[in-house]
Amino acid sequence: MENTNTNSTEQESMGDTKKYTVTVVGVGLIGGSMALALKEKGFAGKVIGVEKSETHRQKALQLGLVDEVWNMEEAITQSDIIILSVPVGVCMEVLPGILNKIDRQVVIDVGSTKQGLIEIVSGHPKRGRFVATHPMWGTEYSGPEAAVKGAFAGKANVICNKHESDADAVELIEKLYRTLGMYLVYMNAADHDVHVAYVSHISHITSFALANTVLEKEKEEDAIFELASAGFESTVRLAKSNPAMWVPVFMQNRENVLDVLNEHISQLRKFKACLEKENTEYLQELIENANKIRKIIK
Amino acid sequence: MENTNTNSTEQESMGDTKKYTVTVVGVGLIGGSMALALKEKGFAGKVIGVEKSETHRQKALQLGLVDEVWNMEEAITQSDIIILSVPVGVCMEVLPGILNKIDRQVVIDVGSTKQGLIEIVSGHPKRGRFVATHPMWGTEYSGPEAAVKGAFAGKANVICNKHESDADAVELIEKLYRTLGMYLVYMNAADHDVHVAYVSHISHITSFALANTVLEKEKEEDAIFELASAGFESTVRLAKSNPAMWVPVFMQNRENVLDVLNEHISQLRKFKACLEKENTEYLQELIENANKIRKIIK
Repeated sequence: MENTNTNSTEQESMGDTKKYTVTVVGVGLIGGSMALALKEKGFAGKVIGVEKSETHRQKALQLGLVDEVWNMEEAITQSDIIILSVPVGVCMEVLPGILNKIDRQVVIDVGSTKQGLIEIVSGHPKRGRFVATHPMWGTEYSGPEAAVKGAFAGKANVICNKHESDADAVELIEKLYRTLGMYLVYMNAADHDVHVAYVSHISHITSFALANTVLEKEKEEDAIFELASAGFESTVRLAKSNPAMWVPVFMQNRENVLDVLNEHISQLRKFKACLEKENTEYLQELIENANKIRKIIK
Repeated sequence: MENTNTNSTEQESMGDTKKYTVTVVGVGLIGGSMALALKEKGFAGKVIGVEKSETHRQKALQLGLVDEVWNMEEAITQSDIIILSVPVGVCMEVLPGILNKIDRQVVIDVGSTKQGLIEIVSGHPKRGRFVATHPMWGTEYSGPEAAVKGAFAGKANVICNKHESDADAVELIEKLYRTLGMYLVYMNAADHDVHVAYVSHISHITSFALANTVLEKEKEEDAIFELASAGFESTVRLAKSNPAMWVPVFMQNRENVLDVLNEHISQLRKFKACLEKENTEYLQELIENANKIRKIIK
């Protein structure tokens, strides 16, 4: 893993003010927020939306997330950059077809798993025009109305298997993410998928399972509502996340997620054993060990 | 469970401007934040700190959390209200002795479990002077430096077994919490302990266990640091919490916590089975069910 610092100021001072036409395929939380940010920063002169839901199309235009709405074919022709911000399963279905149709354009995805997608286009004659990226930002909400201004800034964007993409394509996409105020991290797809199982996917599973635990056993919803502290809200908020996005992510990354989930269940069993045996010393140790996360998460 | 709305404006307009001398036993996150709020709102004319740690005593004075520091005996004599904000095990040790020494004063605790503490003073001749309370506010930090201004406002405070306390004592403590901008919820101690196992204690256990999972398996700390998204941070932040507070809470409430923990492990196993069997339909169902938490947590 190597990092680079943002460098947009230097580029701006070099008078690089070219504005790009950007197509966003799937105008929801990530695609919509990216559209807003690229226009606000002056990177995109025009944003075209490709969106299969009629409601979302209307909403995206009405909220000013996109300037125009086109079908995929026409949007590709008009664009410099195509951003795939659809669930990873859909991404895997449409990416080869998009690569068939492009020439000078650059295509990126913004999904949470990388290995499967990259394998699908491995050996494609236009593989070089595709850059696999994962901006590490999101919320538990979805759809065009979930799009927010000022997203992404200060967060990491991962670029996977950089050397399989054309140098000019990578350079353009690095510029795009730096314009959003993100710092760049480079990884191979397999490592990426292991790491995100730890720093993102397992958090979603524990949160979904925690919500189901409370909904199953705590029938007095009023009590939850009245008493829920900030601590509960923060551990359970990801449970509002959209299954259309997360089912394919978990399935794509199932082996890594299963590894982490097995470890997590075994860690929970240690807490259970402490309580059953009233072993306060070991409980103290487990919590002290958990406190080491302070070194990593400030 | 019954609720009442805050009514401090009305009381203020009645010209009730008496200032109380309040002793805070244990000047950490909760005690310190309460001291700050009670002074800021004009409820406390003087706040006395009782604190066994010399470092915390100095810090509490230096940060202006308390006006003076006394030993327990002298502090009790001078006070109208004594707030026990020490770990629940310490609370159980010191409360009977404090009740032996008081006369007109009112004593409250602010701990996360209630049943055990209330049993210990059941039948004590001064039981009426004790009001069992649980302000539903906290952070993952501890000690005097963790104390913050503006805490508690808009959150619930639970009063348990109200009818075992003298009417004038309850009234005074209701006034105290309303002054902090909290709304009041009344419960018996057994119900309280069940509910908090769901809306607070299990969140802490999942968070500690999640931290241990990641620390055990993810040896590339740099990767966590670089990639950790807001989602990871929010599910793991409680893992920074202080074992001195949480070990006694889990032990006091072990039967309820074990019930919830068993359910939680069985909910996680459902996700595991879905991944193992590639059962996307059931995975979708589990997540859709979890999404129902939206009804409860906005």
